Amino acid sequence: MKERIAQILSWYESDNPGTRANLVRILNHGRLGGTGRLVILPVDQGFEHGPARSFAPNPAGYNPLYHFQLALEAGCTAYAAPLGFLEAGAARYAGEIPLILKANNHDVLHDEKDPLSAVTASVRQALRLGCAAIGFTIYPGSSQSRTMYEQLRALSEEAKDAGLAVVVWSYPRGSQLSKEGETAIDVVAYAAQIAAQLGAHIIKVKLPSAHIELTDAKKVYEKQQIPIGTLAERVRHVVQSAFDGRRIVIFSGGAKAEDERVFEEARAIRDGGGFGSIIGRNSFQRPRAEALKFLDTVIKIYGGELK
Amino acid sequence: MKERIAQILSWYESDNPGTRANLVRILNHGRLGGTGRLVILPVDQGFEHGPARSFAPNPAGYNPLYHFQLALEAGCTAYAAPLGFLEAGAARYAGEIPLILKANNHDVLHDEKDPLSAVTASVRQALRLGCAAIGFTIYPGSSQSRTMYEQLRALSEEAKDAGLAVVVWSYPRGSQLSKEGETAIDVVAYAAQIAAQLGAHIIKVKLPSAHIELTDAKKVYEKQQIPIGTLAERVRHVVQSAFDGRRIVIFSGGAKAEDERVFEEARAIRDGGGFGSIIGRNSFQRPRAEALKFLDTVIKIYGGELK
Amino acid sequence: MKERIAQILSWYESDNPGTRANLVRILNHGRLGGTGRLVILPVDQGFEHGPARSFAPNPAGYNPLYHFQLALEAGCTAYAAPLGFLEAGAARYAGEIPLILKANNHDVLHDEKDPLSAVTASVRQALRLGCAAIGFTIYPGSSQSRTMYEQLRALSEEAKDAGLAVVVWSYPRGSQLSKEGETAIDVVAYAAQIAAQLGAHIIKVKLPSAHIELTDAKKVYEKQQIPIGTLAERVRHVVQSAFDGRRIVIFSGGAKAEDERVFEEARAIRDGGGFGSIIGRNSFQRPRAEALKFLDTVIKIYGGELK
Amino acid sequence: MKERIAQILSWYESDNPGTRANLVRILNHGRLGGTGRLVILPVDQGFEHGPARSFAPNPAGYNPLYHFQLALEAGCTAYAAPLGFLEAGAARYAGEIPLILKANNHDVLHDEKDPLSAVTASVRQALRLGCAAIGFTIYPGSSQSRTMYEQLRALSEEAKDAGLAVVVWSYPRGSQLSKEGETAIDVVAYAAQIAAQLGAHIIKVKLPSAHIELTDAKKVYEKQQIPIGTLAERVRHVVQSAFDGRRIVIFSGGAKAEDERVFEEARAIRDGGGFGSIIGRNSFQRPRAEALKFLDTVIKIYGGELK
Amino acid sequence: MKERIAQILSWYESDNPGTRANLVRILNHGRLGGTGRLVILPVDQGFEHGPARSFAPNPAGYNPLYHFQLALEAGCTAYAAPLGFLEAGAARYAGEIPLILKANNHDVLHDEKDPLSAVTASVRQALRLGCAAIGFTIYPGSSQSRTMYEQLRALSEEAKDAGLAVVVWSYPRGSQLSKEGETAIDVVAYAAQIAAQLGAHIIKVKLPSAHIELTDAKKVYEKQQIPIGTLAERVRHVVQSAFDGRRIVIFSGGAKAEDERVFEEARAIRDGGGFGSIIGRNSFQRPRAEALKFLDTVIKIYGGELK
Repeated sequence: MKERIAQILSWYESDNPGTRANLVRILNHGRLGGTGRLVILPVDQGFEHGPARSFAPNPAGYNPLYHFQLALEAGCTAYAAPLGFLEAGAARYAGEIPLILKANNHDVLHDEKDPLSAVTASVRQALRLGCAAIGFTIYPGSSQSRTMYEQLRALSEEAKDAGLAVVVWSYPRGSQLSKEGETAIDVVAYAAQIAAQLGAHIIKVKLPSAHIELTDAKKVYEKQQIPIGTLAERVRHVVQSAFDGRRIVIFSGGAKAEDERVFEEARAIRDGGGFGSIIGRNSFQRPRAEALKFLDTVIKIYGGELK
Repeated sequence: MKERIAQILSWYESDNPGTRANLVRILNHGRLGGTGRLVILPVDQGFEHGPARSFAPNPAGYNPLYHFQLALEAGCTAYAAPLGFLEAGAARYAGEIPLILKANNHDVLHDEKDPLSAVTASVRQALRLGCAAIGFTIYPGSSQSRTMYEQLRALSEEAKDAGLAVVVWSYPRGSQLSKEGETAIDVVAYAAQIAAQLGAHIIKVKLPSAHIELTDAKKVYEKQQIPIGTLAERVRHVVQSAFDGRRIVIFSGGAKAEDERVFEEARAIRDGGGFGSIIGRNSFQRPRAEALKFLDTVIKIYGGELK
Repeated sequence: MKERIAQILSWYESDNPGTRANLVRILNHGRLGGTGRLVILPVDQGFEHGPARSFAPNPAGYNPLYHFQLALEAGCTAYAAPLGFLEAGAARYAGEIPLILKANNHDVLHDEKDPLSAVTASVRQALRLGCAAIGFTIYPGSSQSRTMYEQLRALSEEAKDAGLAVVVWSYPRGSQLSKEGETAIDVVAYAAQIAAQLGAHIIKVKLPSAHIELTDAKKVYEKQQIPIGTLAERVRHVVQSAFDGRRIVIFSGGAKAEDERVFEEARAIRDGGGFGSIIGRNSFQRPRAEALKFLDTVIKIYGGELK
Repeated sequence: MKERIAQILSWYESDNPGTRANLVRILNHGRLGGTGRLVILPVDQGFEHGPARSFAPNPAGYNPLYHFQLALEAGCTAYAAPLGFLEAGAARYAGEIPLILKANNHDVLHDEKDPLSAVTASVRQALRLGCAAIGFTIYPGSSQSRTMYEQLRALSEEAKDAGLAVVVWSYPRGSQLSKEGETAIDVVAYAAQIAAQLGAHIIKVKLPSAHIELTDAKKVYEKQQIPIGTLAERVRHVVQSAFDGRRIVIFSGGAKAEDERVFEEARAIRDGGGFGSIIGRNSFQRPRAEALKFLDTVIKIYGGELK
Repeated sequence: MKERIAQILSWYESDNPGTRANLVRILNHGRLGGTGRLVILPVDQGFEHGPARSFAPNPAGYNPLYHFQLALEAGCTAYAAPLGFLEAGAARYAGEIPLILKANNHDVLHDEKDPLSAVTASVRQALRLGCAAIGFTIYPGSSQSRTMYEQLRALSEEAKDAGLAVVVWSYPRGSQLSKEGETAIDVVAYAAQIAAQLGAHIIKVKLPSAHIELTDAKKVYEKQQIPIGTLAERVRHVVQSAFDGRRIVIFSGGAKAEDERVFEEARAIRDGGGFGSIIGRNSFQRPRAEALKFLDTVIKIYGGELK
């Protein structure tokens, strides 16, 4: 085992051999295998935003097999999707790439200020489909966060008992947060801490801004002069907030953006000690060749081949 | 096995042999057996709208045995009904036609803007009655959709484990949708996607209009110039939205209408790549002889005997 | 087995032998045994209305043993009561009369527009007490009807598995119904249909008036000229609405009334094809001798000895 | 077995030998053993009203062992308390006095018009602690009464299966009752009926006033001229309302009062056919010697030694 | 076994040997082992207040291993933390210090007047991690207290069956309490009583003020002249309120404060018969050396080495 992987694994020594094996499987897969860096392809936008908004820009993406192939060819670390998308390809691509079953989902046909996703998959289904992990979204700040934490607790315990890893999407939202507050540095760091305390192995958060949302937190950031001026500094603070770097924290690419900005962000994540990216729309919403080229650059940034 | 059936089956390769067998049983039954097309007879209107509104136009329909006979004589693909109707005839018609136990129902003695059906049957009951599948309605857009998705998730997992197929009625409704929006093309396509992501084998939606409901979706439809001008084009888009045609999507006939309009719609469904129709009120609300003649035409359209 | 009983039994051929045996036990018991007619004694008013309102007019009724004896001596078909009343006499009268355990109850110390009864007994308790059936009230039209349907579904499945029969009290009530609407012919027929679709073996409804409550239904009643002018016609329509007469439908006597009116109603139920009555307050709220005489007349009407 | 005990036991002949044995154990314990009368010591006020209000008047009562000793020395029938108080002494006093585990509790740090107690103990815990019965409070009249009835139903079934007896505190409260109505004769009689119908072996109610709360009930009380003028008459009516005296009904002493008044009430309970008292604050809120003297008088009244 | 430990253990004689062994393990651990005094290190502030507010003052605390080491080196009695923090170090520090798994947590990204924490860990997880106890927070006074009591009841029964001890944080909060009332002497004493009645082995409350919140309680405090003038007197009253001192009651240090004040409080706790302190922010929010010195003083106060 590569030294860096052994080091990362040492942070999870309370887990059983099955879960540790799946973490290693994920960390050793793809072009970044063995580096301790991850680039994950997630495709739940069909459920979350609707099919046309997700796949019309690159209609090949309507086909669930497309994403398995894309993740494989690009050399991604893992592929994450809801039940239907995984059921449609898990048999054909069995064992070729670590799969993460996204176990809850939300749609925008009915939206609310304090959202709660529906639980759409089970640990048994993840096992049946040969997944390496389950994925679960929590919305800290939602008045319904308690329900999500408790759903995650139960699923997480069951997943760990079954030797799976647990990936948590921790996205602050809710009626007591401002829109800007959803990506405020204090709030994103808090979201990472909550996911870690709830037992996540891999934590996915949004890239934080320099805004500070909570009054009580603001006093501390100012008094302790926590450096949050650059994106890399903010990444470093978020990673520190997840058990001083002893949990894998990756960052989401967000909506489709200028390539150069995404590359810039990847550099900041890397330089700030982040573990990688989870990049959906920026990869599958363009033609395959372009997507492969785009992902190649991102992977090279994380792998250190590109500065 | 006919080639088309084998092709369809290849989309469901994560399912166990029992479920695949039941899918084959459905696809091979009736006059359209082996063609990959389906015409299903559903009779849940007694529960959903009341007995007189459903059966007074053709009082033979008050008798549950009538519908088994009608579906059989017409050569339909399957017969779908609530628990009571199936219990009343399942023993007599055992093994003669694939049965779909409609596992949730809603009545109009109490109606609401954000509806939630009652779960009225279980997977065990479907097995006891010799059914090939369970049926379940979700109302994407309802503030209670989360509950329905989670009920479906649990029933669906249990049904698949037991070797049954899962048919999902995906009908957008709810306080955040306009009446027109319930059949808007973007909303119907989204409803098909959600059902597919939730693991449905067969998806039933309403025929979509050219209206676009959601602002964010409208931009994409316009930018990508998705063709939705004709009914066949809209059917094609909905089928594409259900995993690029890798899920069986059928369309509901809706309220009683002019025969010619129904035939026209069947042609559009067929030509747009749809898999068939689920026709209730248009068949059982007329005398048996007329119903058989009517269904004969529909089946001939799907079978290609009629243009 | 008498021919009529065999005929009735043929409607329930999906049920297991245990349930069929209990249906036969009920249909063969008492003075109407073998005729296909039923007169059931229900005593849940102590819970539903309070003890003094129920039993002060004939204080012997405070004693739970009284009702077992009354039902036996009068030659009733079965005796239905809540847990406490059955526990108090089931051992002493074991095997002498079919018992129906009323598994949910409601009191008027707290009342509401959209009522929901409390589940007060289980299938296991019915088995322990030697019952032939469970009884359950649903309030179609209540905003809480969904909960009741789902409770009934679960209890009903368990009861049928255990070889018990299921008797459903289907009483429309709720904020979207007018007071008059609770006994409107369209609403009562709808209530019978819902109970049948939910899998009831025996359905109890109130006697319907000629009022039509629902606008959409009214159109159909008028267009199809459904005959509802006389009580017998309305009974016939309700029986038709319960699977074209293939489910046992009985009618409740309601509050204490003039004897002659009750006899008149019994004749209408009989002549309209109804299966009998469930008569509580009119029998136990008068002295025993009078009650026996009264029930004797009702039974003779159903048995055909009296016109 | 004493004749009176055998007679009482005959009312519970649907119960299993284990439960009957525990009823006998209770009825045969203490100075009133064998008489069919009961004086139970309940100490849940620490939870219900707070420790200082409960125990400061006689600080020895802060100690859980005190109450075991008091009940034993006074020759009480049984001792009832919440989980914590029983856990604190059940091992030391094992087998010396019948214990009743109070399985739900309510505090006044948050109070509400329509209360619902928290379930604070289980049947398994009652068995572990060697209890003879569980105790449970219902608040008929509360908008949450349904929940309490269903909790009681489940606990009661489990307790009876395990050979325990079931004691129900039936205390009307709720937004649709006036303060005076909580102890109105019609309401208390109704509360006793509900507890009996729910399957209680022993029913505890408050002493009723001559007030009649419910309009529909008032008519009956007047028409039937039910005697409720004296306390003994009201006790008799409540006992009649609990299955014509075929259930054990005891009355609560309420808040601390003049001794003479309590003795007067005990005589009325005895003379009205009540089965005894459950006396908490009047016994443990005074020094031990006084408490023993006080209970001695009460017991002598029930035993007939004192008029 | 030391005499004092044997005495304490005698209060818990209804517990099984496993639970008693874990209580002994806790009471015998650390520098205060065998004295019957406890100083526990709790670190759940990362979840409850966010990472920067908790750990930025002493960034070493971001690392979960830090707190295990701190508790060990300082000679604390036990270490309490949420799931994530324990998972991160339980394997490395296995068996070196008694662990308390904090099984529910609350964050301030969404706050409410009547709070309810999320259940974030299970008894099975506590067993997997080698814990000696579970910890659970209740908020008496919250409109949601009923839910917390019932969650605690279930977890507590399961924990005790599994041989674990149960530590309850009992913190009054809720819309019917004033801010001052949360630490009022009557309310804190009530909170201790509730925790004891719910079956807690170790009870953690806040230090009470001399304020009296509840009108009915105020009368009793005045009439009985309960001494609450000094902090030691108030501690004594709270300890008395927890079964007359027959339950272990410890007090929380609260927010970071002047050292001298904390020492003063420790003396008052000791002199008032309290069993010790649970000190989080005052210990881990300063550099390690200072923290060790600070805890050394606290421990010496409890051990009697310092007056």
